Amino acid sequence: MADSTLILLRHGESEWNASNQFTGWMDVDLTDKGRTEAVRGGKLLAEEGLLPDVLYTSLLRRAITTAHLALDAADRLWIPVHRDWRLNERHYGALQGLNKAETKEKYGEEQFMLWRRSYDTPPPPIEPGSAYSQDTDPRYADIGGGPLTECLADVVARFIPYFTETIVADLKAGKTVLIAAHGNSLRALVKHLDGMSDDQVVGLNIPTGIPLRYDLDADLKPLVPGGTYLDPEAAAAGAAAVASQGAK
Amino acid sequence: MADSTLILLRHGESEWNASNQFTGWMDVDLTDKGRTEAVRGGKLLAEEGLLPDVLYTSLLRRAITTAHLALDAADRLWIPVHRDWRLNERHYGALQGLNKAETKEKYGEEQFMLWRRSYDTPPPPIEPGSAYSQDTDPRYADIGGGPLTECLADVVARFIPYFTETIVADLKAGKTVLIAAHGNSLRALVKHLDGMSDDQVVGLNIPTGIPLRYDLDADLKPLVPGGTYLDPEAAAAGAAAVASQGAK
Repeated sequence: MADSTLILLRHGESEWNASNQFTGWMDVDLTDKGRTEAVRGGKLLAEEGLLPDVLYTSLLRRAITTAHLALDAADRLWIPVHRDWRLNERHYGALQGLNKAETKEKYGEEQFMLWRRSYDTPPPPIEPGSAYSQDTDPRYADIGGGPLTECLADVVARFIPYFTETIVADLKAGKTVLIAAHGNSLRALVKHLDGMSDDQVVGLNIPTGIPLRYDLDADLKPLVPGGTYLDPEAAAAGAAAVASQGAK
Repeated sequence: MADSTLILLRHGESEWNASNQFTGWMDVDLTDKGRTEAVRGGKLLAEEGLLPDVLYTSLLRRAITTAHLALDAADRLWIPVHRDWRLNERHYGALQGLNKAETKEKYGEEQFMLWRRSYDTPPPPIEPGSAYSQDTDPRYADIGGGPLTECLADVVARFIPYFTETIVADLKAGKTVLIAAHGNSLRALVKHLDGMSDDQVVGLNIPTGIPLRYDLDADLKPLVPGGTYLDPEAAAAGAAAVASQGAK
């Protein structure tokens, strides 16, 4: 019997998922397909009777709108909401805005995979003031505009303390918590929950729009390692699609 | 020079606005027209450079979705959000679900206007367990299912203390506050802000989807009594439409 339940939801397909560009902190919208995925995610929650008591989101509209559409479909729009930059996608540094296939061609497979999947090698920093920089975005004013680049280790370092200091309190209170976030912030969290090594997390891919359920014991250990996707077949196909990004 | 700015936004047209039914705490959705109104409200905010720092909504999806669409259009989806039942529409008691024109025909103009617009005469209480009751709705579990009926005085009595104890702290901190709520909860607040008498508020109608701006001094007195609609012409037409509800 679980002491608490955590639901992870990666945003549905975004405009830059569709155009195969590195997104990072760029605040792009969902595609129509992404909206449909979000609604379906909410319906899966409702069918499962898995009703969140509280929502945490990043500051990015693709996660916020995914949560809105999913909770609307699950009739839980009214639950309390907390938004925090620590749930944001990994900042992709100077790669933000670049096409993934072109980047792979230009820098080669090895460098490309290092930037995408190595645990502790960040891409080159973004130039402040450049087209895809967030340094003057008002939402990041109180953190000096935010980082100029991040590796997955950086995401772990900013998100996991927020998880343990803030979100865990809701879990300890027995609440069902929904986290609507991003590929890499959710990879950071899954690494933490499942006690994965730095090497293990490299091979982890999280599909868009499919709720991932973690039932946790009193020590916040998953009852089922890796959690359970509400639609396992679609999740497997989605994870394979994420892994193959960079192909033309 | 204002010390703070408060923006009031009544939700866009809902399904039951369109079908001319008493809505109250029934959680009906926006119509397509209502969604368009909400987006336009957000564009008006952006054009005016009137950018909210924090959002307060009721627990009802027509207000929550209006705020979502408006803030998306104004590129402010990322601001902190607080939801509270005290911002809900007036509970319409046993009238919830009834057609306004039919109710007027059945009970007569005088009784109809008394229920709609008198300050302190509530409609008959709703029967717990009946089709349009919220007594088993989980969102109201911690207030015993909520009221069984309310007059405008009841809305004042629940909303204004929340305003003065919670929302005012954000205004005193100089934040621009957006409140996305309902015809009667906003009438209660405008009565308070403008120091209207119980009789004066009877004639006040608030149109859907048009931001109403209040610039406030350090004592929270409006610099312009009645505030300023961002689209005054549309607001006048909208208020007249609200006043004429109950006509067939």
